[in-house]
Parts: sequence; structure tokens; C-alpha cells
Amino acid sequence: MNQKRIGDYGVRIGSLPAGPRNKLSDVPGVTVGHWTLHDDTHHTGVTVILPGEENIYLNKCVAASYVVNGYGKTAGLVQIDELGVLESPIALTGTLNVGLVHDALVQYTLDECAKAGVSVRSVNPVVGECNDGTLGDNSLRAVGCAQVMQAIAAATVDFDEGAVGAGAGMICHELKGGIGSASRRIRLEGKDYMVGVLVQANHGQLADLRINGENVGPAIRKKVKDSVPPRAEEKGSCMIILATDLPLSDRQLRRVIKRCAAGLVRNGSYLGHGSGDVCIGFTTANRLREGDKQPLLQLTQLNEGLINRAFRAAAEAAEEAVLNAMVSADGVTGKDGVYRPSLREFL
Amino acid sequence: MNQKRIGDYGVRIGSLPAGPRNKLSDVPGVTVGHWTLHDDTHHTGVTVILPGEENIYLNKCVAASYVVNGYGKTAGLVQIDELGVLESPIALTGTLNVGLVHDALVQYTLDECAKAGVSVRSVNPVVGECNDGTLGDNSLRAVGCAQVMQAIAAATVDFDEGAVGAGAGMICHELKGGIGSASRRIRLEGKDYMVGVLVQANHGQLADLRINGENVGPAIRKKVKDSVPPRAEEKGSCMIILATDLPLSDRQLRRVIKRCAAGLVRNGSYLGHGSGDVCIGFTTANRLREGDKQPLLQLTQLNEGLINRAFRAAAEAAEEAVLNAMVSADGVTGKDGVYRPSLREFL
Amino acid sequence: MNQKRIGDYGVRIGSLPAGPRNKLSDVPGVTVGHWTLHDDTHHTGVTVILPGEENIYLNKCVAASYVVNGYGKTAGLVQIDELGVLESPIALTGTLNVGLVHDALVQYTLDECAKAGVSVRSVNPVVGECNDGTLGDNSLRAVGCAQVMQAIAAATVDFDEGAVGAGAGMICHELKGGIGSASRRIRLEGKDYMVGVLVQANHGQLADLRINGENVGPAIRKKVKDSVPPRAEEKGSCMIILATDLPLSDRQLRRVIKRCAAGLVRNGSYLGHGSGDVCIGFTTANRLREGDKQPLLQLTQLNEGLINRAFRAAAEAAEEAVLNAMVSADGVTGKDGVYRPSLREFL
Amino acid sequence: MNQKRIGDYGVRIGSLPAGPRNKLSDVPGVTVGHWTLHDDTHHTGVTVILPGEENIYLNKCVAASYVVNGYGKTAGLVQIDELGVLESPIALTGTLNVGLVHDALVQYTLDECAKAGVSVRSVNPVVGECNDGTLGDNSLRAVGCAQVMQAIAAATVDFDEGAVGAGAGMICHELKGGIGSASRRIRLEGKDYMVGVLVQANHGQLADLRINGENVGPAIRKKVKDSVPPRAEEKGSCMIILATDLPLSDRQLRRVIKRCAAGLVRNGSYLGHGSGDVCIGFTTANRLREGDKQPLLQLTQLNEGLINRAFRAAAEAAEEAVLNAMVSADGVTGKDGVYRPSLREFL
Repeated sequence: MNQKRIGDYGVRIGSLPAGPRNKLSDVPGVTVGHWTLHDDTHHTGVTVILPGEENIYLNKCVAASYVVNGYGKTAGLVQIDELGVLESPIALTGTLNVGLVHDALVQYTLDECAKAGVSVRSVNPVVGECNDGTLGDNSLRAVGCAQVMQAIAAATVDFDEGAVGAGAGMICHELKGGIGSASRRIRLEGKDYMVGVLVQANHGQLADLRINGENVGPAIRKKVKDSVPPRAEEKGSCMIILATDLPLSDRQLRRVIKRCAAGLVRNGSYLGHGSGDVCIGFTTANRLREGDKQPLLQLTQLNEGLINRAFRAAAEAAEEAVLNAMVSADGVTGKDGVYRPSLREFL
Repeated sequence: MNQKRIGDYGVRIGSLPAGPRNKLSDVPGVTVGHWTLHDDTHHTGVTVILPGEENIYLNKCVAASYVVNGYGKTAGLVQIDELGVLESPIALTGTLNVGLVHDALVQYTLDECAKAGVSVRSVNPVVGECNDGTLGDNSLRAVGCAQVMQAIAAATVDFDEGAVGAGAGMICHELKGGIGSASRRIRLEGKDYMVGVLVQANHGQLADLRINGENVGPAIRKKVKDSVPPRAEEKGSCMIILATDLPLSDRQLRRVIKRCAAGLVRNGSYLGHGSGDVCIGFTTANRLREGDKQPLLQLTQLNEGLINRAFRAAAEAAEEAVLNAMVSADGVTGKDGVYRPSLREFL
Repeated sequence: MNQKRIGDYGVRIGSLPAGPRNKLSDVPGVTVGHWTLHDDTHHTGVTVILPGEENIYLNKCVAASYVVNGYGKTAGLVQIDELGVLESPIALTGTLNVGLVHDALVQYTLDECAKAGVSVRSVNPVVGECNDGTLGDNSLRAVGCAQVMQAIAAATVDFDEGAVGAGAGMICHELKGGIGSASRRIRLEGKDYMVGVLVQANHGQLADLRINGENVGPAIRKKVKDSVPPRAEEKGSCMIILATDLPLSDRQLRRVIKRCAAGLVRNGSYLGHGSGDVCIGFTTANRLREGDKQPLLQLTQLNEGLINRAFRAAAEAAEEAVLNAMVSADGVTGKDGVYRPSLREFL
Repeated sequence: MNQKRIGDYGVRIGSLPAGPRNKLSDVPGVTVGHWTLHDDTHHTGVTVILPGEENIYLNKCVAASYVVNGYGKTAGLVQIDELGVLESPIALTGTLNVGLVHDALVQYTLDECAKAGVSVRSVNPVVGECNDGTLGDNSLRAVGCAQVMQAIAAATVDFDEGAVGAGAGMICHELKGGIGSASRRIRLEGKDYMVGVLVQANHGQLADLRINGENVGPAIRKKVKDSVPPRAEEKGSCMIILATDLPLSDRQLRRVIKRCAAGLVRNGSYLGHGSGDVCIGFTTANRLREGDKQPLLQLTQLNEGLINRAFRAAAEAAEEAVLNAMVSADGVTGKDGVYRPSLREFL
């Protein structure tokens, strides 16, 4: 695939350097897989983020969540908040598909741990969602266990963006939305660290859309006239996944992912009522081994006085990830016969 | 069924009067249904709480959640916390069954709203869980859509307690646990209000068990010797559902349900690490109609200066509900061949 | 005083209309008073927001807080969060002055209630702060009881903005900061409601500064060269007070004030680590009378489906309030002999 | 002083061993000082907890807060929650004295850091409070800077309990309340750790009072008849300070201190509405040096699988600390001429 991204149009978001791929997968070990369905009645799918090659249940990552706006159905946050760890891949899908995808992650965990000779009786699957019921008929819940397994099998560092996986049915700022990603590099005492963000972008109104500060939405509206239906209200949700190899505590990670909301705001969002905007973050640098018997554990954390650069990285990467989702997505004609163009068509 | 309850042994918990059934269903409109499976490999099921006869999606209840200890997988809390409403029945089940039960509640909502001529694209199912993997093989996930529908169809005010529904596979203070319930009556200016609690009790250690303050656990341990395996750690979870017809705001409701934890503590729990203890509450007295167009809504709330009696009701009902779960549950022999006796056998 | 504001430079923030004064005091009853001290060693003061003419302790307002970034010393949030009410004026001051100003609000409440024949044994003073220790010697803590009483006595709807009151020692985006305000008008079924915001702006870096999306900071930096010392990190805090006459519940109010952070972000902030960014909001439309004996209270709340316009109002007013603080502030030479210019000098 | 404690009456709370002093000061380095005023119009004072001999501002402790019930005026929690550290001594006092004590801790920090050659422009004083306005005239606010300095100067490992310091004006379960303390010892791989709790106990109703499960309140009420005025509602607050030398993260510490509420409940409290019940915890085992330039810091934390013993220690120590406060307090005659007896008089 030869997808365009916002940087291909000369737009540079923020001041920090991007990683080599400018994607979530710049964080070593992190891969992303999609399963996608576009047909007459469906524009849906699932996207799975794998934190690394190790079994994540047996090698948990320090993690945190932050709810920007909780009009959403994300599953798995209660335990992340209590224990500060992630023990399953993170799956993103359509709103009504959360249950089946949750069950698929249970099966995946049982299978993977059985391979390792470990019998599992409890696991905390993490499933985020946005509503894909405008473009497709989301009552059909097309994403089941087999589809999640295919997405996992397809996971790669060179994952696609746009109208793929959980991005298939997304609408963002009234144009086609989808999956987007970006990354930022941070240097500490001669060593590089990565902060990567992946969004499932389904939020925002066109009139508010800004690119690097410029309010481009009204001009696009003039071009598309009534052919693109306006959203009466800002709604539709944005899931934000942040990965990093910076050593952070769960508290620090929560502070960092909270700044991803700034990225949405820079693009013109008001964090509307109808939007389930949820951030989930993990660091691959602090792992907890299932069944570890050591009474005391050593964890490394960033000197809090240096955390501003991680804040900035999170905000910049989120801002760019949303734009990448919009630029890389091909336009899609929904079940209602209406075509949602790509932002790319107006650049 | 002719189940014994803790009151049948002369134990009176607290100082407030109980409602006529001394159950969650003393709150007018509230019903509870179970689907239960006990066989050689399964001790599992599902329990569904229905807030009333009206379609709950179209007539949402003011609601709140409070996480006592978040080592659990309860789904649906993000939206309850943001919007302060409940829009689906509450289902309780085994840990690994959350996804399938979640999906069943989606289907239930789609079906019920279709009957009312309403097409639904988003719903927030609420599913609580405790781990039933000690007594049965919970990897089998026996509770699917059909089972949830059967539980809903069976909902009644005269629901059973004990090793039924989501209580089938529970262990509480190392004895047989299950579903239990109790209620308390509050009088305000000549009018009665009900506070009902239902628990899925799967927590606690035997040595800590207290009945109305008396530490009965050690004597029971002496009797059972090693035949009942001790829990190395306090774990296993307790789900707590509170219903009331008191007019409360979501903030007030959160304060009230938080006091349910006091009931667990009175019975000897230390709110252990491995326990996913989650309270969810709703009031039938403040409803929000889906699609209501009125710009301003009138809600009634309790004068905060009188809220102590609701606090006490919540604590007392939760304390008694756990004991009712233990007393009413028949002893069960698990997949491991070990018999978990009922507390009833020692009273 | 004939202060310039950002609107005088042709800048129009957002899409909603402002109130008649475009200030917090567009909310009927709300007034603001300052006490200011600029001399060789001091650039400090206090700003007090009065929710209305009635005794606020006896006629509490529904209120909420939201901590954007908690590197701050704001007092009074614990009780606001628990009870959802404000029972004292809100005072803003310098970081090290919080204690003395807190004590002054205690005295004020005792005095005011004594006039009403009510003896008070408990009150929850609300005191926000930003650090004014760069421009002045904040260890001197010049704001005591007399100064707070003077600020209260001076409260008016036509209050000044800029380097006055708690704004005296502020630095914002490396230029002179201060107190700023703005408002937005919302129409519901033919009736107008006001959302007003007041900020104590002490945050941000110059390189990041944006006006309505345009990144004006770098050009200003070129002009000032090294004469204005750069902040190594984004720090310094922003207090945000929101008042409205929209009937909102405390939960709704928390959602609304959370959107004020979007305003800071629009101006270029990354919500930096060292910044204590705290939002406090109240509505004059829902009052609770101290000692009310009615068991049930009627409260009015906004239909949640219409809350987006309040979100937008909060974000727009906060964005403009920060710019008003910067434009209206006169440049100040600090105790270090360094002059911090006004943004006005570059427009 | 030769104070009696609950253990002197043969009461043994819980199953874990106490430390050598059975006080907060069993945690190495922790000391406590009081300043007390009992006269015709005053029953008030201040109690200061010092985390160690080092300057706490320059050697911060990992810390956490948990609000059991937020009807209180505790200052300093916003920053503890954000940064997970304590940088000042913790002072406890009467409700209306919070501001002046806050200011005193500012002065203390400025002075101590000046001695170390460090100029401080920001500090987060932590001040907890309970209402001492029933026994004395709390509008007089007798605790100022000099009194706080005296309390600090008096700090010792062998501090008094009962009606001293911030305990002077306390009422607990309608009897005399005060300052109480207890500790528990935890052994990990051959090394001992201490969990100490100190309470300022001012909560509860007599009818609910329990000692080790036994509801002793009603019998005491029969003895005292109307001579001791009943509290119409459970109110009055309990501050709970926990110290430990267990290496815990701030998240773990929050989980541990949350269990202190179980201790209050065991003694019969329902965590009433009018009570400001706040837990603050710190560990001396994880320190952060002010101005540390290392980019990455090593912190040690407990294996979460072993945290149950810290939970139990917190609950047991809090339960015993409240009883110690009540037993060690001498009866006091308040400004109203009414005598509040000590629990000791009934044992």
C-alpha cells in the first residue's frame, strides 16, 4: 500500500522529531493488525495492538487509562486503573461488537497461555470502540473470534492506516475517518525513546477542523456543499492508544496520555458530549511477570522534572495521528448511499 | 423453594427495618432472573437485574458506580460515571463470560427497542463478574445469548438466592457463596422508600468470618479441618448491586453505594487485593427518557442532610445480603471433587 | 480604566456570541474584586469572585471542580467534589499566600453569618493560586485578612483585568500575564444563559503561543530576543473559574469546566508538568439553603443532549480569557529588574 | 505520662503483631509533636507528623491520599494525587484553623530550606482537620505559627495520645475522642517492615460503638443516660495518617490506606455524611530528592501479590488506633459545661 500521510502535504505538526516510521510501531516490539470488512451493508472491522512478542499475560506492561469523555463502552479500564498493568492485547472495534471481541481476547489468552503451559482462569481483555453504525449496519456485529485471530495474525510494524480494521466505519470531522498513527522521539542522556500514538478517529465537526492551527473546515464545507451530511452535534468518539519505551510509572503514564487530548483539541475538537474519548497507554520498559515470587521489585521511572517532553510528544503525536487517519483513509460510500470523502481530496 | 436466610437463625443485622421481602425486589418494579448450570464440569450461570417493566434503554435510570477494589472485569462503568445513567439491565456472571453476556445484552436491547419501533446503534451493557473457575471449568464459557434471554424471561420479584445464576460457582469466606439479597426501609415525611441490595459473593477468608460482630470463622474451621481448602489470600470478588426508589442524584447515589463496602467489612472482609469488589446503584425515582427534547429537566434529590439513613440502609443491607447468600446456598462439590459446605450447616 | 482586550485587535475567538460585558460578571449577580500590590519587592495581590449578593454560605451554589494538572495548592476541592456545592467566595492569590487567604475567608464567613444571626462552626473556603515568586518576593506573603476584605469590598461587575489582584505577579507564555475574562451566551427556547470564565494566567511558553490558531510566539521571540527570559519548561499554573446561570447538576458542571482546558490548548499550552491548572465552576441557577429541612429538593438540569453548546462556550471563553489577560496586562519590571512586556506591545 | 491503651484491657485487635511501641513512630524516623490548649473557652491544638529527620521538602516521600468521605477541608491533596509525593510535614488541627496552620507550614519550609541554603518559592503544605467547635469556641483559631513551631519542636517517638494536640477538642462515638495510634509488623523474606497509623478521631455514634465486634455502645448509653448528649447524626470526621517503611508505589499506597476505612467500620462507623474522613499515607522507603538531575530513577515496590498483608495491617492498625484514642483520652468538660467521659471509664 502506498498511503499518503499529512506530512506528504508539507504539514509539520509540533517541534519534536518523529520516529523512523512515524507510527506506534516505532516503539520496539509493538505491532498492529487489522481485519477489515467493506461491503454493501458493512463497513466494520477490528484492529489489535500487540505490545510485544512475549505473551502479554505472562509479561504484563505497566499501563494507565484516562477517560477524556466517557460516553463510550471501552472494557477493561477498571483493572488497569487498580493495578496499573495491561495483560492482554488492546483491540479496537465498533460499539456493538465489544462483547464478541472481548470474548475473542479471552480465547486468545487461554490459547497463548496453554502453549506456555499455563492454565488461566482470569484475564482482563481491553477493548475500545467507536460507533460504526452510520456507514454500515452495526447491529450485525460481524467481528467475532475468527476475525480477531486474523487481525492478530496479521500484526506487523508496517500496518496500514485509514479505512482499515476498526477504522473501516469511522467518520472524522464529517469526512472519512479511520485508524491513524504517529510517533515522537525523545532523547535522554544520549539514548532515544519513542512515544507512539494510534487513534481510531470518529469525532469532530467539519466547521471546526484545523490543520496546524488553520481552520480549513469552512472552505471544505463550501466545496462539498450538502453532499456531505453535517453532524448536528460533535459526537462519534476517538480512541487513543499510546505506547512508549520510556520507563514510566502508571501514574506518570496517566499524566502523559492525558495530554493526547490536546492533540484532538488542536485539530478543532471541543471534546463533545456524544464522543467516547478514551486514552490507554502502556510502557514496554516496565514489565511484571505473572507469578513472580520476588517480594520486592525494582521499577525505573522518569525523573518527573523531565516529563514535559513526554507530554509534548503525546500531544503532537495524537494531533498528527488524527490527521494521518483522515488523509490516509479512502473515501467510502455508506449503507445510506452517501459518500464520505477523504481529507486528501481537499489538500 | 424454601430457602433459609440468616434471619431464620435469629440474627438481626443493624437497626433499620427490612422491606416485606427483604430483597432487592422490594424496590417497586425491580425483578431478578437466573439461569443456572450445575454439572460435572460446570458450576456457572447468569443473574440479570431488571430495573422495571419499562424498556430501560428508553427510560434510563439515574445510576452510579463505585469501585471498592478494581481487580475485576466489570464492563459498562465508564459511561455510567460520565452520564450518571443506566440504560441496560445489569447482568452478573463468571469472569470469562463477560464478553458473551455483554453481547447478549446488546441483542436484548436491539430486540426490545425494535419492538418499540426504535432502531438502536449504541447501548452501554453493564456486566459484572466474579470468578467461578475454582468449582467449575470456566474456560468453557457456557453462558451465551440464549442463556441470558432465559434468565431475563425468568425474572421475578420472588427470585432465589444461593448457588443459583451467577452464584452457582461462588465461594465466600471459603464456604459456598452465591447470590444474596436484603433490603431496608426508610421513612421520609410519612412516605416509605426502599433500599435493596443484591450481592454476588465470592470473597473473604474463613478465619475472618463474622456474624453480627462475632468471629465465627475459627470455630467453623476447627469443624471442617482440612476438608475445606483454605484460601491463601483474600480474593475472589464481590459484586454489589443497589436499587432504590429514593430520589437521588448520581452523586448522592455514588455516596450511598460506597457504604455497601461497610457491609462486607462487618462480615470480616479486608477488601483483599485479589477481589474485584464493585458497587453499582440505580434509582427508579429519577428517569431520563431517550430522545427527550425538553431543554430543562426537573430532578428530585434527597436533602443531603438526611442521607445518613440511606448510608446506613446500604451498609446494613449489604452485610445481610452476604450472609443470606451464604446461608441460602446449598453446599456444592466442585470439579476438583472438593465439597464446599453451606454456612447453614454450621448454624 | 480603559483597557484593551483581544477583540480590540480584530480577533474573534470561536463562534458563539459573547455576553454584554464579555466577562464573568455577565452571569447575573457575579462580581469580582481585586486588591493589588506593585512595588519594588512585591507584585502580588488577591482576586475574589463573589457568586451573588446573597450570603453564599447560607445560599450555596451547585459547584464542581476539575483538576487539569494538579501541581498546585488549591484548597477546598475535597468538599466541592463530595457535596457538589460552593459555600464561600472563591479567592485567587499567590502560592505561598493560600493559608492566610484561607483564614481570611473563614473570618469573612463568620462575620457575614453573624450579621444574619447564624453561628458558623465549619466552612469550606476555596482558594486557588498561581506562583508569583518570579516577579516579586512571594515569601513575604503580603495578602492577609485586611487585604482580602478590601478585595471583597471592591467587588463589581466592571472589574479590571490584567496585572491586577492575583494577576499582579503572573507571567503567561513568557510575557506579562494576569487576570482575564470572557463570556459566551447560549440560547435555549428563547431564553438566554451566560457562561463566564475568569482566569489567573501564569502558564505557557512563548514559542508555543497561538492567537486563533496562528503561532505568533516565534515572531515575538525574535523581537524581544534575550530581553525576555525564556522558561526552560512549561510551568506556572492557570486557575480557571467558570460561572453560569444555566441549570446544571454538579456532574454536568464538571463536564463543562473540563472543556476550559481546550481553551488553554488552543492558545498553545501543552498543559505542562509544572503547572497547577485547576477549574472550578458554579451555577447560580441551583441553590441549596443552609439548614433547609425539606426532605426532597427539586433541581433543574440541562437536557444532556444540549450540553455541547455549554462545552463550546466554556472552551471559547477560556481561550479568550487568557488572551484578554495577556492583552490587558501592562508590562511589569520584576524584582530581578527584568521587564516582562504585554502581548499588547506586539499586536 | 502513663496512659492506658485498649490493649491494657485485654483487647487484641486483629491477627498481625504490633511494633515495639504500637505507634506510628514504629516506622523508623517518624515522630509526632503536639501543642495543646485546654481552658474555659478552648479545647484545641495542633499535631504535627514529621516523616523523618531529613528536610522533607528536599527529600520528599512517595505518598498518596484517599478520601473516604469528603465533607472536610483538608489542604494539600491535589498535589499529592498528581505527583505522588509528600514535601511537608502533615499537620492536624481544628476545622477553622486550617489556613493559619497552612501558613505556618509555609514558614517552616522556608526556614528549614534557608538553613540548607535553598530558596523555596513553592511548597505544598498538608493540613488535615476535624471540627473542635463543640467543646471549644473554634472561631477563636488559637493555633498560629508559633504554636505549630512548638508542636514541631516537641516531636518525639514517644508522643502522647488522647485529648492532646489536634485531639484536644475531639468527640468520638459521643465520648471523648482524640489522637490515637497503633502499628503492625510485616515480615518479608526475613526482614521486618512497619505499618503505623495515627488518627484524629472525632466521628461516630455511641449506639454503634463496637470493640472487637462487640456492640458495647448501648450498655454505655444506659449508664450515662442523658448526661452525654447524643449526636443526631454520624458526623465529626476522622483524619487517618499512615506511615510505612515498606517500599510501595503511590498507587499501592493509595490501595493500602483505603483499607484504613475498614478499621473505622469495625468500630461501628457507617462513614456518615457529616464526617470528613480522609486518609493520607507515605512511605519512607521511596524518597525523591528535590533538584535531582538523574533522568531515570529506581524505585522499589512491593510485589502486588503480597499486598494483602499491608491491607490487613492498615485495617487493624486503624481499628486499634481509634480505640487507643478513646481509651487514652481523659474526659473533658466543654464550653457548654457538658462532660464527655473517656471510654476508659466504662472498661
